[in-house]
Amino acid sequence: MNSYSLQPHFCKLRENCGLFAVYNHPQASYLTYLGLYALQHRGEESAGIISYNGKEFFIHKELGHVADVFNEDILNKLKGESAIGHVRYSTYGSTNIENAQPLLVKCAQGAIAIAHNGNLVNALQLRKELESQGAIFQTTTDSEIILHLIAHSSHGNLLDSLIEALKRVKGAYCFLLMDENSIIAARDPYGFKPLCLGRIKDAFVVSSESCALDLIEAEFLREIEPGEVVVINENGLKSVKPFPKPFHLAQCIFEHIYFSRPDSVIFGENVHVVRERLGKKLVEEYPVNADVIVPVPDSGTSCAIGFSKASGIPIDLGIIRNHYVGRTFIQPSQIIRDFNVRIKFNLIRDVLKNKKVVIVDDSIVRGTTSQKRVRELRKAGAKEVHMRISCPPHKFPCFYGIDFPTKEELIANRFSSLDEIRKFLDVDSLGYLSREGMLSCVKAFSPEDYCTACFDGNYPVPFGEEKNKFEAELNSRKVRRC
Amino acid sequence: MNSYSLQPHFCKLRENCGLFAVYNHPQASYLTYLGLYALQHRGEESAGIISYNGKEFFIHKELGHVADVFNEDILNKLKGESAIGHVRYSTYGSTNIENAQPLLVKCAQGAIAIAHNGNLVNALQLRKELESQGAIFQTTTDSEIILHLIAHSSHGNLLDSLIEALKRVKGAYCFLLMDENSIIAARDPYGFKPLCLGRIKDAFVVSSESCALDLIEAEFLREIEPGEVVVINENGLKSVKPFPKPFHLAQCIFEHIYFSRPDSVIFGENVHVVRERLGKKLVEEYPVNADVIVPVPDSGTSCAIGFSKASGIPIDLGIIRNHYVGRTFIQPSQIIRDFNVRIKFNLIRDVLKNKKVVIVDDSIVRGTTSQKRVRELRKAGAKEVHMRISCPPHKFPCFYGIDFPTKEELIANRFSSLDEIRKFLDVDSLGYLSREGMLSCVKAFSPEDYCTACFDGNYPVPFGEEKNKFEAELNSRKVRRC
Amino acid sequence: MNSYSLQPHFCKLRENCGLFAVYNHPQASYLTYLGLYALQHRGEESAGIISYNGKEFFIHKELGHVADVFNEDILNKLKGESAIGHVRYSTYGSTNIENAQPLLVKCAQGAIAIAHNGNLVNALQLRKELESQGAIFQTTTDSEIILHLIAHSSHGNLLDSLIEALKRVKGAYCFLLMDENSIIAARDPYGFKPLCLGRIKDAFVVSSESCALDLIEAEFLREIEPGEVVVINENGLKSVKPFPKPFHLAQCIFEHIYFSRPDSVIFGENVHVVRERLGKKLVEEYPVNADVIVPVPDSGTSCAIGFSKASGIPIDLGIIRNHYVGRTFIQPSQIIRDFNVRIKFNLIRDVLKNKKVVIVDDSIVRGTTSQKRVRELRKAGAKEVHMRISCPPHKFPCFYGIDFPTKEELIANRFSSLDEIRKFLDVDSLGYLSREGMLSCVKAFSPEDYCTACFDGNYPVPFGEEKNKFEAELNSRKVRRC
Amino acid sequence: MNSYSLQPHFCKLRENCGLFAVYNHPQASYLTYLGLYALQHRGEESAGIISYNGKEFFIHKELGHVADVFNEDILNKLKGESAIGHVRYSTYGSTNIENAQPLLVKCAQGAIAIAHNGNLVNALQLRKELESQGAIFQTTTDSEIILHLIAHSSHGNLLDSLIEALKRVKGAYCFLLMDENSIIAARDPYGFKPLCLGRIKDAFVVSSESCALDLIEAEFLREIEPGEVVVINENGLKSVKPFPKPFHLAQCIFEHIYFSRPDSVIFGENVHVVRERLGKKLVEEYPVNADVIVPVPDSGTSCAIGFSKASGIPIDLGIIRNHYVGRTFIQPSQIIRDFNVRIKFNLIRDVLKNKKVVIVDDSIVRGTTSQKRVRELRKAGAKEVHMRISCPPHKFPCFYGIDFPTKEELIANRFSSLDEIRKFLDVDSLGYLSREGMLSCVKAFSPEDYCTACFDGNYPVPFGEEKNKFEAELNSRKVRRC
Repeated sequence: MNSYSLQPHFCKLRENCGLFAVYNHPQASYLTYLGLYALQHRGEESAGIISYNGKEFFIHKELGHVADVFNEDILNKLKGESAIGHVRYSTYGSTNIENAQPLLVKCAQGAIAIAHNGNLVNALQLRKELESQGAIFQTTTDSEIILHLIAHSSHGNLLDSLIEALKRVKGAYCFLLMDENSIIAARDPYGFKPLCLGRIKDAFVVSSESCALDLIEAEFLREIEPGEVVVINENGLKSVKPFPKPFHLAQCIFEHIYFSRPDSVIFGENVHVVRERLGKKLVEEYPVNADVIVPVPDSGTSCAIGFSKASGIPIDLGIIRNHYVGRTFIQPSQIIRDFNVRIKFNLIRDVLKNKKVVIVDDSIVRGTTSQKRVRELRKAGAKEVHMRISCPPHKFPCFYGIDFPTKEELIANRFSSLDEIRKFLDVDSLGYLSREGMLSCVKAFSPEDYCTACFDGNYPVPFGEEKNKFEAELNSRKVRRC
Repeated sequence: MNSYSLQPHFCKLRENCGLFAVYNHPQASYLTYLGLYALQHRGEESAGIISYNGKEFFIHKELGHVADVFNEDILNKLKGESAIGHVRYSTYGSTNIENAQPLLVKCAQGAIAIAHNGNLVNALQLRKELESQGAIFQTTTDSEIILHLIAHSSHGNLLDSLIEALKRVKGAYCFLLMDENSIIAARDPYGFKPLCLGRIKDAFVVSSESCALDLIEAEFLREIEPGEVVVINENGLKSVKPFPKPFHLAQCIFEHIYFSRPDSVIFGENVHVVRERLGKKLVEEYPVNADVIVPVPDSGTSCAIGFSKASGIPIDLGIIRNHYVGRTFIQPSQIIRDFNVRIKFNLIRDVLKNKKVVIVDDSIVRGTTSQKRVRELRKAGAKEVHMRISCPPHKFPCFYGIDFPTKEELIANRFSSLDEIRKFLDVDSLGYLSREGMLSCVKAFSPEDYCTACFDGNYPVPFGEEKNKFEAELNSRKVRRC
Repeated sequence: MNSYSLQPHFCKLRENCGLFAVYNHPQASYLTYLGLYALQHRGEESAGIISYNGKEFFIHKELGHVADVFNEDILNKLKGESAIGHVRYSTYGSTNIENAQPLLVKCAQGAIAIAHNGNLVNALQLRKELESQGAIFQTTTDSEIILHLIAHSSHGNLLDSLIEALKRVKGAYCFLLMDENSIIAARDPYGFKPLCLGRIKDAFVVSSESCALDLIEAEFLREIEPGEVVVINENGLKSVKPFPKPFHLAQCIFEHIYFSRPDSVIFGENVHVVRERLGKKLVEEYPVNADVIVPVPDSGTSCAIGFSKASGIPIDLGIIRNHYVGRTFIQPSQIIRDFNVRIKFNLIRDVLKNKKVVIVDDSIVRGTTSQKRVRELRKAGAKEVHMRISCPPHKFPCFYGIDFPTKEELIANRFSSLDEIRKFLDVDSLGYLSREGMLSCVKAFSPEDYCTACFDGNYPVPFGEEKNKFEAELNSRKVRRC
Repeated sequence: MNSYSLQPHFCKLRENCGLFAVYNHPQASYLTYLGLYALQHRGEESAGIISYNGKEFFIHKELGHVADVFNEDILNKLKGESAIGHVRYSTYGSTNIENAQPLLVKCAQGAIAIAHNGNLVNALQLRKELESQGAIFQTTTDSEIILHLIAHSSHGNLLDSLIEALKRVKGAYCFLLMDENSIIAARDPYGFKPLCLGRIKDAFVVSSESCALDLIEAEFLREIEPGEVVVINENGLKSVKPFPKPFHLAQCIFEHIYFSRPDSVIFGENVHVVRERLGKKLVEEYPVNADVIVPVPDSGTSCAIGFSKASGIPIDLGIIRNHYVGRTFIQPSQIIRDFNVRIKFNLIRDVLKNKKVVIVDDSIVRGTTSQKRVRELRKAGAKEVHMRISCPPHKFPCFYGIDFPTKEELIANRFSSLDEIRKFLDVDSLGYLSREGMLSCVKAFSPEDYCTACFDGNYPVPFGEEKNKFEAELNSRKVRRC
């Protein structure tokens, strides 16, 4: 049923995922399950847990949402006091069970379980090199590359082998590893992806976002630092920082704008608070004379609240989201494509009729969805429609894990001026927050410590010419699952 | 797999459901599917569609959400230009496939499909009478009772038989029927439940709520009136009003408060607008000195917006809802029960810390969930917690379709004063909207035209002493599905 | 998944099924499950069990094989000391979950569970009559007709109501009923279908065939007699014979020829022994000069053994059956249809090459399969192919439960002489056992006590002109499940 | 659902499987599906197909029977003119989806698909060596070892790399490989396992047994020879014999005795014919005075036919097999264990009563099943029970693929004399065919060219002391799937 698809098998460029680990808790796998549940927004494609009870490893992973992949019976069989878990984001609609994580392998260092979030930029180069040394690959995950590097390491213990391996890789990553003795968590030196540490009773917990700690009522200890490798074993927690510090960090600003949950604390501050600030800043940069502010649920809500507070314009529910969407939905291929928008959202005419409306959204990617929405708002009677976006225009692909469409598809590259985009969307005014405005809203680090490559093309870890070769390469390696 | 449960089989007292019908559209069943999707909040237990292509009837129904019950293959097999559909609310956690609707039977009047929303108060009396005349029952639905009454009618055509049948029943109902010639929609004389009429091209559409018309971009024509029976066939639409008008209507006020979607128009006005008025009225009746208004998502949001507008206190996202919940979730039976609350909701500390907080919610039923929520808010740093509820205290059971707990479980019956409830919930102030205040917010009809029985015990259609007999009877008729 | 099909809903003429019941055993439903397993050959379409634990009824039924429909969890939930079960044969490929049995209903006599094997010949007449009295039908099973008749009975107890009901019906039937007090088993006065009684410890068991008693190691007590109604309750077993004895019984001879399992005892003797006699008789009637006897597995095996013993010609494995068939198999619609034959059977060339071969089979229906098989045998090198059939040619439809094709499709009606059939099949000689020869092989009753209508058109219970009306009627009542 | 179990993950010693491949046919995967269907008896645990359409590879594999793993939709997605397929035998009840074959990997030589039948005796030694060189293992299949050896090869093309790899391995194997250009089939120099070549139109076909060629009506060309590597590509078929010839072949005699289908031709002759000879030889070695020969269906049937022909004692159906078994069956854990035997087989008393019975079977492994069967036969009235077995007593484990129990469990090791076994089984006489008698029945090769290690302990490819280390090693590497 869920084990086949028409998606490319050896093809993967970027993926954002969710990680969770528990060390030393009698319900390790149950807590991991709850943690993954809270991180579901980071990956709806597949879910998996590997646990260890001091003698044996137990594994279960499947395509699908956390709630569908696990049941009580399965959780009971995932015995042990240690567990790591993973939810995978669907890039390209890929649904490969092979690529579901965590992976579990046996090599010279023993049995190792691993899970990964992020994207290595020298993955294909490393694959080729490893292949030329005789390595065989069964997945296209970055995790498998790390495992090969570990397996080729001359070090006998997992920590040293991992550090040696990490010295070879470039890009954005958080890794969780588990062997018979320990759980290891690693975050790349640039700190692209969030990762934090918590405690519940005598157990240590690691999570991509703090909202998962809240759910299991674990205490938030701190974030794992960029470039930090944390080993948790029977001796407690040990922190290592084996890598040279980069000149600046490169924390993904889009995690604050869109990806993370508003109730999480990442990169030193609460996401919702940052988003409120973005809304307030938008009022500063693009004030508007309007009757009502309508957030695009759910990602635009925090920002719209900030916008309302700063502008004094009341917020109202002009757009309603159907929360049952997210489940598999039969695409009305044979009928009107527009249905899809109406299925996710509906409008409330009484809120919009004869009103000057401000829509606040987190981003415009292709622009087609926004265009349709504006059309709907006008049909519902909106006198004026003003659009405010809480970040600059997206012009560049992300090579560190966020799955944007190709450069050509991005609306900001299809039109040469803001006014053309405005006309395309048919809005009375359009305001994108400036790069500086956006960066002024994150206050925990200096502006240089965030990655804004998708806006300005300044890639902190260079992808170089390899990029083109990658894409050609990818097209030549095709396997499909059925 | 999904066809068994441990729930009582012959046991049903009340259920609220969703109805949808299409007459004369080449994609009748696909539109019905989309309509049911929009009405999913009215029933998550089962979903079903029966279509008719002029020669044959086609049927599919199963336990589960609309998106899980149907797929493209099934929809393609549901051929024809007419279709009726049904989603069923889970009362008592009952999950009987037998009770899934629509029903399809053969009797002297020919093949008839039927679906029902509401609750007859003389159902068991009618069942007994029919049984004593030799009727056999395979479900516990009110639909089957109506079918028996139709089958026993002396009239040859469906409309006359239905009218004769409806003259025997008492209670709250909307019925959809389909035979080889027509679709018939009927709403009870008191108008307990909403039902509306739309048009898309040459097709007529009937729906429990108007939000489903929006989704398929059908034109909203009008609501079906209390006591109206509408026949749609090749001659177009015919309206009949065969019943004496009651002195007052009894439109369910709780549909406005909680049950219907905010983007629907029911009982003559938009639900969200009514809820905003409730919020404004709450400020009038229970003003408060506070820093921030926190809606309980999603049902409290509209009301909170009204409260914010009237009070000038800003609204903020103090409580975040996990929208993946709704899917089956493994209950942490073995661990802490409180997890369940944290799974659905999380708090944002930065919004709450050192703040005087107003929580706005639609109702308090048992009070245990609210109590836990207040405790969480205080733990998150709220300096004061004020609670405002957009209706009076619930003190009486509903016999017309809403599934409240028993009288003894209702918090308003467990405590003798408002202050006791306030203390139980541990809030600094508590305000329930008054009955009059609530009724002043619905403006399309006079206050007497709404049913407020769950607040004041004034049952517009008497249930009488039968009630006790019912419950005893129910306990003696037990069948379980496995 | 398994709840839809494109098959007619209100359409059913004949079906042969399997029945099993247990009264007063702590593992009633588990034993019933095993019993149904042994009766699987009598019905592969659906399986169901209803149990009763003195307080509640428990029910589970689904489309599919017994082993797929039940699992340990479900069997554990089917609590109680009494249970009845049913497997349904797929007629017309119909796969309606509605028609799955046992049925469970509530009527004036209380809750009643029922299962049925056979076919009533006045079913539609009774349906019409009942419909004209206001009955509604949700299935097309004969069981539902009986339930309506019971429900309309003036008697208060189930036994009297059932007897009154059975006096109205004509045709072939075995019924199992269960209410809160008892299990009742009834066999029609002509004894068309087998039904027997067993005991395991303190429990009584009823089964369509004795092979199911063997499986659970129950003692075989006796067959239930034609026209006998057996009531099993806390007072033990009571036998009633409320119907006038017909002049002759009409036990289905085809149960011996083909339908029942060779290890069963039915109609007073072992099926395998009868089949061996048929083989011996064939040698008498159609001796042959051949090298090897090849049974068509598995139904021709017993007969071939008899043929071998009587003729002295050795039996050998010329045709091998693939025993994994029976499971759903993907029909090679797009490729060669003949695959299907090869999938079920393969030949062993070394056994056939240059040999004079006798194939022994139980019957030829359409002839197309036999024709292909002969072609294969010749391709495998058989020098001569002789065919021997253990019954006369099938010329007439069965109205009592066996699902033959239409009269026009029967090979014996398509050709005017035996020699034409022989030429069509391309065999060197062809011998059908004579009616008298066949009847000489059943020794427990006199020849007149068997129904041979499918061979000679002498229908013991007349179907009359109604037959044509039935078929017309059926065509006008169409409902399809999706 | 089917992706977890409690079985060891890194633990595998022996497995017998089925292989099938098609090159250059428009319905390559459909034919492969049919071929696997015919080979289902060689592996019921999992089934898989990988196809290639000149551009992309397509893969589908799952736990379960062939008919359950594939459907029309999946087969349509398995596009291309080349395909290889695999069915896996369940050893130790292991049900790991990871170990399901074929495998598909990417290495320096490109994408390679592989499937394997047999067992390497130096697998663990090679694994350790490869691990020490940095290899990581994700399965415990011998296929993965071969892939690592290929990946480490210095040769650029698959054939040379494979030959280099095969020179490293010892044991019993047939391999199928597919890359972008070719399909390669290899059989080990000793010829342990059968593998044959066929043609259908312009396509070449490779199969473990010839019965699968019959099913798709492919022409049987010849067996692939021991030590032969066959490459099929656009230039046609090329045969290579790169290995030194062993002094004697070691074709598995147990394939003839039990494992292969009677309608297959393996090792130069038809299996059924060999089994008839075994039966005749048994009469020579152990004549008996009896009334009836009862084969144990289905494996004993061919032998019993030979026994009957030679002895003149008629064969009869004393034991009936329930052909629905094979599907998952709920083990009556809570009730009597003996049920299992009755579920698979039933007896026909009329055949056995007061008779001197000879049971003919292919082997006795533990003896417990045979013992129960004899007890049943006596209860059914058999006056005498004689047992004849078509091979010598099993005393030694097989290290080449057949999954026997441990040495201690084998009945022939638990008792010191034939008479003790006879007493344990409670038979009147017991005859095992002698080693020489058995070998006299295979006529295509000289007796020395068969492996009889399980009878005499003469292992043609030594396993040495490694064996013990293996088992210890295995116990220390435990991973469980949930």
